[in-house]
Amino acid sequence: MSATTSVDDRLAAVEARLRRVEDELAITRLVLSYGPAVDSGSAEATAALWDDGGRYDFQDGAPVIEGSAAMASMVRSPGHRAHLARGCAHVLTAPAVRVDGDRAVALCYSLMHHYVSETGIFQVSRVSANRWELVRGPSGWRVGSRVNRLLTGDEAARALLAGG
Amino acid sequence: MSATTSVDDRLAAVEARLRRVEDELAITRLVLSYGPAVDSGSAEATAALWDDGGRYDFQDGAPVIEGSAAMASMVRSPGHRAHLARGCAHVLTAPAVRVDGDRAVALCYSLMHHYVSETGIFQVSRVSANRWELVRGPSGWRVGSRVNRLLTGDEAARALLAGG
Amino acid sequence: MSATTSVDDRLAAVEARLRRVEDELAITRLVLSYGPAVDSGSAEATAALWDDGGRYDFQDGAPVIEGSAAMASMVRSPGHRAHLARGCAHVLTAPAVRVDGDRAVALCYSLMHHYVSETGIFQVSRVSANRWELVRGPSGWRVGSRVNRLLTGDEAARALLAGG
Repeated sequence: MSATTSVDDRLAAVEARLRRVEDELAITRLVLSYGPAVDSGSAEATAALWDDGGRYDFQDGAPVIEGSAAMASMVRSPGHRAHLARGCAHVLTAPAVRVDGDRAVALCYSLMHHYVSETGIFQVSRVSANRWELVRGPSGWRVGSRVNRLLTGDEAARALLAGG
Repeated sequence: MSATTSVDDRLAAVEARLRRVEDELAITRLVLSYGPAVDSGSAEATAALWDDGGRYDFQDGAPVIEGSAAMASMVRSPGHRAHLARGCAHVLTAPAVRVDGDRAVALCYSLMHHYVSETGIFQVSRVSANRWELVRGPSGWRVGSRVNRLLTGDEAARALLAGG
Repeated sequence: MSATTSVDDRLAAVEARLRRVEDELAITRLVLSYGPAVDSGSAEATAALWDDGGRYDFQDGAPVIEGSAAMASMVRSPGHRAHLARGCAHVLTAPAVRVDGDRAVALCYSLMHHYVSETGIFQVSRVSANRWELVRGPSGWRVGSRVNRLLTGDEAARALLAGG
């Protein structure tokens, strides 16, 4: 930086870069909090990751979950509880995050593991491409949209991962 | 920030935020160093992640490993060496980190993969919830306590993940 | 920091620390972008991760891929397309990054998952130790060298992970 750059300008530049770094870390933390939230059956903690009107399109052909209240209902559902009782892990990889002001996109993989009591080991039931769209709200970053597509050879998953 | 905020105050705020960011990255690096350390059989590198009196409670019902010297012994043990000779990977996901001054909590998953020579592919032998408690010491962040619980449907793993 | 430290010195220290943090995040983003790039069949995006003369030694005994143009060719190859059509995920864990000026080393795991249509679930076809050597160039961090070794019990993978 040139010797004539004022202290005020240097400080402003540092503050802006730091905010960019904090955004990237906050979004990473948000995505990495999803697994512990759903695998512990914490309905409120899961819902709090989503924007009030945020969406979760978790599978081609299945109904889209609309809104954070519906996320909480999903976690409390008998179907989800049956997963937990069997032994289940929603393993998410750290996302590649791209922040653009008050919006961001994050790409990662989710791998659903189930315990198989007959063999005593785990199976990888689902591997999905994940595209998260995040929005900065009054209380920080939240999920505006999350879309998952199974990596079973279909074009939909490839399109999701190409859009990063 | 208001125009009347002094340069000194702005600098102090930036320094504090930056330290918070560095802490989160240091803890992430610490957790992500565990796999390479144990899978390469590096006893000293593994021990150096732990506080001298740090604990590793790796399985319900098994003895807790107490202290960094005991961590080194674990890595040097015939049992651990047999894992390595067979083909083994301690795959840890990036942790969701929450820093609070000189203490921090990190939640992640560990997935132990073993090579199966009969099939030429790998099996997922164990999937565990991980809760790390970190402490800042004179030479940086170290593990004060790590607790793993298998995600086989038991309440213990869910309680661990809920406590983030 | 002592009360006599000048504003200029404090700013310079903050700028240097911030650059170190940005480097670590940029390298993490680079590594985490590999999976989405190859699994979407994005040849240019994959090539752009590598330095023009960067290398990818992906398997003991196989030819080393030399240069970013050869990376693009790999992604366009019939062999790679067959993987995608079958259903394939190159799942990389977040790397443990060590930055040293304009060079860096990152260690992580890669887990290749394939969809198995007969069973409807996924298999873990390969689990490899990964050592990335990164270089800072005129347009940011790029891969100078990436070496993978299968974790099938051979010494090569352990040596790779020990060198962090």
